[in-house]
Amino acid sequence: MHNPQLNKHGELQHLLTIDGLPKSIVNHILDTASSFVSVSDREVKKVPLMRGKSVFNLFFENSTRTRTTFEIASKRLSADVINLNIAASSTSKGESLLDTIDNLAAMHADMFVVRHATSGAPFLIAKHLNDTKQHHVHVVNAGDGRHAHPTQGLLDMYTIRHYKKDFTNLTVAIVGDVLHSRVARSDIHALTTLGVPEVRVIGPRTLLPGGLEQMGVRVFTDMNEGLKGVDVIIMLRLQNERMSGALLPSAQEYFKSYGLTPERLALAHPEAIVMHPGPMNRGVEIDSAVADGPQAVILSQVTFGIAVRMAVMSIVAGNSGSDA
Amino acid sequence: MHNPQLNKHGELQHLLTIDGLPKSIVNHILDTASSFVSVSDREVKKVPLMRGKSVFNLFFENSTRTRTTFEIASKRLSADVINLNIAASSTSKGESLLDTIDNLAAMHADMFVVRHATSGAPFLIAKHLNDTKQHHVHVVNAGDGRHAHPTQGLLDMYTIRHYKKDFTNLTVAIVGDVLHSRVARSDIHALTTLGVPEVRVIGPRTLLPGGLEQMGVRVFTDMNEGLKGVDVIIMLRLQNERMSGALLPSAQEYFKSYGLTPERLALAHPEAIVMHPGPMNRGVEIDSAVADGPQAVILSQVTFGIAVRMAVMSIVAGNSGSDA
Amino acid sequence: MHNPQLNKHGELQHLLTIDGLPKSIVNHILDTASSFVSVSDREVKKVPLMRGKSVFNLFFENSTRTRTTFEIASKRLSADVINLNIAASSTSKGESLLDTIDNLAAMHADMFVVRHATSGAPFLIAKHLNDTKQHHVHVVNAGDGRHAHPTQGLLDMYTIRHYKKDFTNLTVAIVGDVLHSRVARSDIHALTTLGVPEVRVIGPRTLLPGGLEQMGVRVFTDMNEGLKGVDVIIMLRLQNERMSGALLPSAQEYFKSYGLTPERLALAHPEAIVMHPGPMNRGVEIDSAVADGPQAVILSQVTFGIAVRMAVMSIVAGNSGSDA
Repeated sequence: MHNPQLNKHGELQHLLTIDGLPKSIVNHILDTASSFVSVSDREVKKVPLMRGKSVFNLFFENSTRTRTTFEIASKRLSADVINLNIAASSTSKGESLLDTIDNLAAMHADMFVVRHATSGAPFLIAKHLNDTKQHHVHVVNAGDGRHAHPTQGLLDMYTIRHYKKDFTNLTVAIVGDVLHSRVARSDIHALTTLGVPEVRVIGPRTLLPGGLEQMGVRVFTDMNEGLKGVDVIIMLRLQNERMSGALLPSAQEYFKSYGLTPERLALAHPEAIVMHPGPMNRGVEIDSAVADGPQAVILSQVTFGIAVRMAVMSIVAGNSGSDA
Repeated sequence: MHNPQLNKHGELQHLLTIDGLPKSIVNHILDTASSFVSVSDREVKKVPLMRGKSVFNLFFENSTRTRTTFEIASKRLSADVINLNIAASSTSKGESLLDTIDNLAAMHADMFVVRHATSGAPFLIAKHLNDTKQHHVHVVNAGDGRHAHPTQGLLDMYTIRHYKKDFTNLTVAIVGDVLHSRVARSDIHALTTLGVPEVRVIGPRTLLPGGLEQMGVRVFTDMNEGLKGVDVIIMLRLQNERMSGALLPSAQEYFKSYGLTPERLALAHPEAIVMHPGPMNRGVEIDSAVADGPQAVILSQVTFGIAVRMAVMSIVAGNSGSDA
Repeated sequence: MHNPQLNKHGELQHLLTIDGLPKSIVNHILDTASSFVSVSDREVKKVPLMRGKSVFNLFFENSTRTRTTFEIASKRLSADVINLNIAASSTSKGESLLDTIDNLAAMHADMFVVRHATSGAPFLIAKHLNDTKQHHVHVVNAGDGRHAHPTQGLLDMYTIRHYKKDFTNLTVAIVGDVLHSRVARSDIHALTTLGVPEVRVIGPRTLLPGGLEQMGVRVFTDMNEGLKGVDVIIMLRLQNERMSGALLPSAQEYFKSYGLTPERLALAHPEAIVMHPGPMNRGVEIDSAVADGPQAVILSQVTFGIAVRMAVMSIVAGNSGSDA
């Protein structure tokens, strides 16, 4: 099937997933983000690239943190932002998702930033807009179910490139609840695309999905084994609801086996960096001494995340739709 | 009593209701909206007409859809927008409505867009502002109780004019729950003002208010009879709470008698247009084949609605208060 | 301990409390506010002083009224505003307050307007930002627990100066629930700093804190005694939850002893002004005849409040951090 995120010239018209995204487009996003990092340091942090454009933050699932990063990115691009908490809105009046989308598109929206608890919802929206030739609206996936969180994956790649320069000689470990993580999935696709030779996944069996080996990933259930010599450690957030369920004995037990302590960090390469998508559970998946230590680049991820979102938004807004 | 929405020069300083609004003012709004329709198609969709003005969206009743259309319209006029969900705010602290209004006016507000569950609330606010000589603040009614929804009425007129050009040879049918509809009331006033020779209302007796005949409206309880030869069909939304109450047997029964199907639509003039204020209940008041068919102009209504709201806001903001 | 709201040049880099604020800084804020009062009267009510700056309204406690005044002030300074209702956000995911702060600071925030139910929270945030050398972010306290509400105190001073010109010959009475009022505390500090020779506090013993006399305040439990000859009356809001608790018999009883009626107002200086921070409980702490009478300056307080907040925000944004 045709990938609905690319137009017929192979340009990015929506950002739905990193899976299948050509390396050249990933690099173009990272290069563009690089130019925006400096914008955020200026006295006036705005560029007029999306002046007069209307960006709708369509959050069918609440996420203040992610919504804020997109709102900031939109405003620094000089766009007008409309925040819609859709759970509380028309869908409760029985209107279908696609009727809501058509309505907002008819207001001459330029972009939908979509967060949805159901995997595939942003894909469905983008496909509908393409099928109905509403090519003026671009979709950016801000997290859908367990499927993807592509801007998080891209900001992780930006961060790794910033600190490590070259992807082709790295060993990267992703640690924790991979099963429920859209971040892990996006990261694995991106790391593979960019030529990382060794991607490892570390976690308890109950929190690892099947099929990892087929994706070219090395699987470890022993954290000490898995961390040996790695250059990049991506810690995942342990969702509160997992902490005392069927899948895990308790948060304390988890920390004992998979918490990143200074001792464990010492097993990695001496210049390894530590990443985390936030919000952190200190004392559950990560020790405060690591979170606040010199190898953590967690706050840099946040800073780069704004620039990466500005890059994605300005790139897709500049590309015409499928038929153009 | 003096109509509080006109200043002493007969200009529109507030928009409260279409009832009693002179035809010249209605036409001025529609003409102004026409110039804004093209603005929304431009690369930069903003005009500086309300730059530096402060628009307060005062929603005492939640309506994400209507709030969004006014927020978009305000931003395209370059106004600053403040969204206030008042139900959750000061009124819960025991402050009176008019104290809240005085407070916001003292912040040098320029416009209140008011949505309220009580009929007459925007009228009360406008009268209070006039009486206390707070002439710098303009009120736009965004729906009050069962009373009026004038911008919806005006965008319906814009849509009809766009497709049919001349009002004076039209037959227009309004179908459904007229009893509980502020849209129907606004539409009937507007259609009459603009010289439509035949306005019909179609619905079950339990959902029709008294006094329709006195307003010059023809009443039909048989939909097939009522649709014969009409040029414009305005479908009304059936509120969920009516579907299984004392007034109606069920949603299925309603659809059987009053749902707009392709077969019924064929009774109207071959070039009849189908309108709906949204959100639609597909399969209740309207069949999907009609909603998505070539005669439906429902999404055009949404697009025109932004332009009509821009027109109303810029016109009232430009007119001075009662004493000026 | 070093006052974290001043940088090493003694300039205001955060506004946390009026307590200990030098008179010169208070006067500088009031003088700057004076220039902004006229801005609000202009056709275009914006100045570009904070163009491209990102202001985060961090409301850990809901207060639509206060949030609105800061949002308006920010927009009139041309800043970008992000509203965060934090109660509903990351803290519910177990993230610590300071992790949330670091995250938002990493988005290149320029200012946090902080409202928190816990006394000292804005102080803690400012100290953390100073300690971690995140000097690009400025903190403005928008009310913390029972501790302080400095912009309310400053707008009260602006109002008094506007009507009375000279502070050094005034008698000012603060009436009501002083015990639970952050407004009262801020006002007492400000009045003392500005050289008001006599500050009185009037209220029932159960609603007066200890230590007032040591602050140089005269205490009255008899309202008629306390109002004699005063130039300024600052009424406090009686919180609903006090009205029928252990501290007070009832709202009616309270009004009988401490409600400001025309008869009681006649005991004050004939040109005395009446102030109230809002929202008012008419018939509880204040009679409508007084609230709407010629001596009330309650709505002027609101108007001046916008200008004072613009002054505070532009001043702190213009001063560099501790190390600079």
